Amino acid sequence: MKGKLKLGIAGLGTVGIGVLKILESHAKLINQRSDRTIELVAVSAKTRSKERGISLKEFEWESEITNLARRADIDVFVELIGGEENPAKEAIEIALNSGKHVITANKALISKHGQQLAILAEKNNVSLKFEAAVAGGIPAIKTLIESLAGNKITRIMGVMNGTCNYILTRMESANLSYEKVFNEAKALGYLEADPTLDVGGIDASHKLSILSSIAFGTQIEMNAIDIQGIEQITIQDIEHVREMGYRIKLLGVSELTDEGLEQRMQPCLVPAASPIGQLENAMNMIIFDGDNSGQIILRGAGAGEGPTASAVMSDIIDVARGAYIPTFGCPAKDLTKSKKASTSAESAYYVRTKLKDAPGVLAKMASALGNNKISIDQMHQTQHADAAAPVFIVTHKTLPETLRRALKEVVKTGVTMEDPVALRIEEV
Amino acid sequence: MKGKLKLGIAGLGTVGIGVLKILESHAKLINQRSDRTIELVAVSAKTRSKERGISLKEFEWESEITNLARRADIDVFVELIGGEENPAKEAIEIALNSGKHVITANKALISKHGQQLAILAEKNNVSLKFEAAVAGGIPAIKTLIESLAGNKITRIMGVMNGTCNYILTRMESANLSYEKVFNEAKALGYLEADPTLDVGGIDASHKLSILSSIAFGTQIEMNAIDIQGIEQITIQDIEHVREMGYRIKLLGVSELTDEGLEQRMQPCLVPAASPIGQLENAMNMIIFDGDNSGQIILRGAGAGEGPTASAVMSDIIDVARGAYIPTFGCPAKDLTKSKKASTSAESAYYVRTKLKDAPGVLAKMASALGNNKISIDQMHQTQHADAAAPVFIVTHKTLPETLRRALKEVVKTGVTMEDPVALRIEEV
Repeated sequence: MKGKLKLGIAGLGTVGIGVLKILESHAKLINQRSDRTIELVAVSAKTRSKERGISLKEFEWESEITNLARRADIDVFVELIGGEENPAKEAIEIALNSGKHVITANKALISKHGQQLAILAEKNNVSLKFEAAVAGGIPAIKTLIESLAGNKITRIMGVMNGTCNYILTRMESANLSYEKVFNEAKALGYLEADPTLDVGGIDASHKLSILSSIAFGTQIEMNAIDIQGIEQITIQDIEHVREMGYRIKLLGVSELTDEGLEQRMQPCLVPAASPIGQLENAMNMIIFDGDNSGQIILRGAGAGEGPTASAVMSDIIDVARGAYIPTFGCPAKDLTKSKKASTSAESAYYVRTKLKDAPGVLAKMASALGNNKISIDQMHQTQHADAAAPVFIVTHKTLPETLRRALKEVVKTGVTMEDPVALRIEEV
Repeated sequence: MKGKLKLGIAGLGTVGIGVLKILESHAKLINQRSDRTIELVAVSAKTRSKERGISLKEFEWESEITNLARRADIDVFVELIGGEENPAKEAIEIALNSGKHVITANKALISKHGQQLAILAEKNNVSLKFEAAVAGGIPAIKTLIESLAGNKITRIMGVMNGTCNYILTRMESANLSYEKVFNEAKALGYLEADPTLDVGGIDASHKLSILSSIAFGTQIEMNAIDIQGIEQITIQDIEHVREMGYRIKLLGVSELTDEGLEQRMQPCLVPAASPIGQLENAMNMIIFDGDNSGQIILRGAGAGEGPTASAVMSDIIDVARGAYIPTFGCPAKDLTKSKKASTSAESAYYVRTKLKDAPGVLAKMASALGNNKISIDQMHQTQHADAAAPVFIVTHKTLPETLRRALKEVVKTGVTMEDPVALRIEEV
């Protein structure tokens, strides 16, 4: 049996407490699986006295996270405080520079500084690991870096934000408006302090940016992702698409095309009967297409104490077992700048708007689309009691920029009473 | 960059050729990801001259697999010839004893000799790895050993034989008899030389036995699995259960209960809308329930050149990266003998038989069930032109041994014209 592996944990929120509970309740199992003793030596958090339902008196206390990162008696620094800048960043740098392995669940920080920190880790011959940063308990990072290492990855696709998926599936199952379910989710504590991170697609994009970097050996480029949130989705959209056999999901897609690397995070229509269409509540799903493996689908809880702590533990046990694998699956200095794809592949679109209730308006809309060579697969004007006639259209395949141009033309004709919303119909 | 990692590959069938193709086509990617050069040095197979669509002239040839295992110039011995005994077993022992890492796709051999070989590997401080032995391209082994290492696993469930799933879904989609689809599958080369391995549930049970051992830290006990094949499933069964919202799957379940370790491989009814019910064609699905992670579902191709070779490559690259993790996730000598559960949990059952077309037969059957306190949820007698009346029943929850006793009693009354077939309705 090897010597003890000593941990310092910064951050005692949901995930931190989850890790402490596993270390306590599963000690025997974990030590047997690691073939050594894993011991928590010291912890750090904002408040010492807070009631956490777990005793901290066995552990050394550090009020400054940077002091925890500096401690000579720990081998692994576990960062669970969050935030893309200091103090998390500084503490991680201190830990790496003093020869400690670092494990974090911090997607925002990795998305922003991941390459730089990985270079630092590699310079110091230590591990920097972040399984918990993407899709909670789902082994997305390990599968991509290790299990699919013999593959050229052609596409990543997934539902990576459980809160958005909860909102969208709850709207459908309870027949409630976006606003109602948003407020429900807020009351339940499902939303980040700044809800835009969730419903605006930012949090999911952080995760997609990390997966893209690993899959394609490219630098993380959050601003190369086309991001659209779910705020505009109405219960009517959900009903319309359900009748056509679809569901709306906040879908992340990263794909190498002839045009370059295409990365987008947007609400899309997916077939209701597909694995991703069937994904309910706060579940996450990650789909990898490998040229040899074919399509590998991973599904599980994307957040929560147990699942996220389980992912942190898998990183800790990897380190305990002595497994050393570069942070991004290849030397971090080798990550290259990707070429952003100038466009997406053609696809069919669902378009929803409201038209003035007057003769000829539908024809004007149809003409504007036709002028841009967009053919219409379906067009529905639904019942209405007021002057605004809800209309939705399904187009045949077209390029996104063609659709954007056509919709601008539609608006210019003066027939619309609200800006058209267009959702891609994704082939999954 | 570390020194070269040198491979010897035994077996140039579908999987072996798949690995050779990846080593050639993905050399740059693999070497970058491993941070070293992976080089195939020598190969061995039954026939040297066979046309394989790939040139072997760069590699040393060994006509005896044991000589390949002995070669001083290889670091990793890759066994892809199959068979649960010699020469595969002997060659692996030689390789391990001479300090070589061993990678195999041989589920039958690992199921039978895995613990003994793992102890040998651990004695020699080398890796013995077999990701490709279970569920092809799906990272089932790695997820269980590494990603879920911080969990007590409570249940494993899955569809682990693509051929059986192909037969069952093809029967449904094409409305064909078992015999017709079996012959189709045979003609397509989907079946093992001895088809019982597939349709009799043996191959899938080999896989389940390996997963159980890792999940529960127990010795592999193939004969502790209750195995039932799919040979008795009729197109009528498939139609009946479809009407009730179910599909029939050859389902492997391994679960720790108060009674001990329950392991079974049998055709079961699962909800058609569940992820496992939706699994089409030759796909595999593995579901792990961890006490912290919650349910993790993995789906992908369970066989074929690319997926299986992808799994072998992940093991090779793990070894190249220097990751060393015990074969079964804990020291192999620590694997304990499990206590076989004396019974399964109660469940509802689908029962199908044919009764004589005479007054009172249904009542006799219902009485025999009632005598054993089995209540009937549904009972259907379907149309028939001959003297045998097809009947199917759905019971309320009961123990499997109670049902067996009741069905014996039904047969004793002399009303049946064929032995009743009972399928468990599984809650997934």
